[in-house]
Amino acid sequence: MVKISILYPQTPDSTFDMEYYVNKHMPMVRQKCAPECRRIAAESGVAGGTPGSLPPYIAVGHLTFDSVEAFQKAFIPHAPEILADIPNYTNTQPIIQISEVAL
Amino acid sequence: MVKISILYPQTPDSTFDMEYYVNKHMPMVRQKCAPECRRIAAESGVAGGTPGSLPPYIAVGHLTFDSVEAFQKAFIPHAPEILADIPNYTNTQPIIQISEVAL
Repeated sequence: MVKISILYPQTPDSTFDMEYYVNKHMPMVRQKCAPECRRIAAESGVAGGTPGSLPPYIAVGHLTFDSVEAFQKAFIPHAPEILADIPNYTNTQPIIQISEVAL
Repeated sequence: MVKISILYPQTPDSTFDMEYYVNKHMPMVRQKCAPECRRIAAESGVAGGTPGSLPPYIAVGHLTFDSVEAFQKAFIPHAPEILADIPNYTNTQPIIQISEVAL
């Protein structure tokens, strides 16, 4: 299984609408990437590792697929529409991490 | 639920022993943080978001707890021992993200 993690950096002026992300954006991605997208998940950044520090990421999303090929097949045809929705919930530029699930 | 994500940056000379991490380090953390630690997970970085790019993180680990307080109660007493094990599997300095699970 591979996990596509979408990391939204925390910056002094970063904004993020978690309600829109969880209720609109992520379900839309899941629907467009069905049936290949096995799971969606999202987290809201709370803190960093030292007392009183900000989290490195204001929010994180995850999409799980069987393989990188399954992700590409499902995502690429819908990428323009999915990416065009980003300004509806954040002013940040996400970082992408593609990982193999190991545990 | 809160997720403590431990992000190990990919650098030109970074090393990471995923077998040790998955089979020794993470189970040790889970055992020491029992019963508060609800779940452990780990991923191995494969790629970034652009073709041919390296992943931002060589590896990522996650620990799930009911609350930040439950994490602190379970983790802090064992922190010295857990942190002392890091050089046994990597030469990198991890970044910590504490998140509220939203989806």
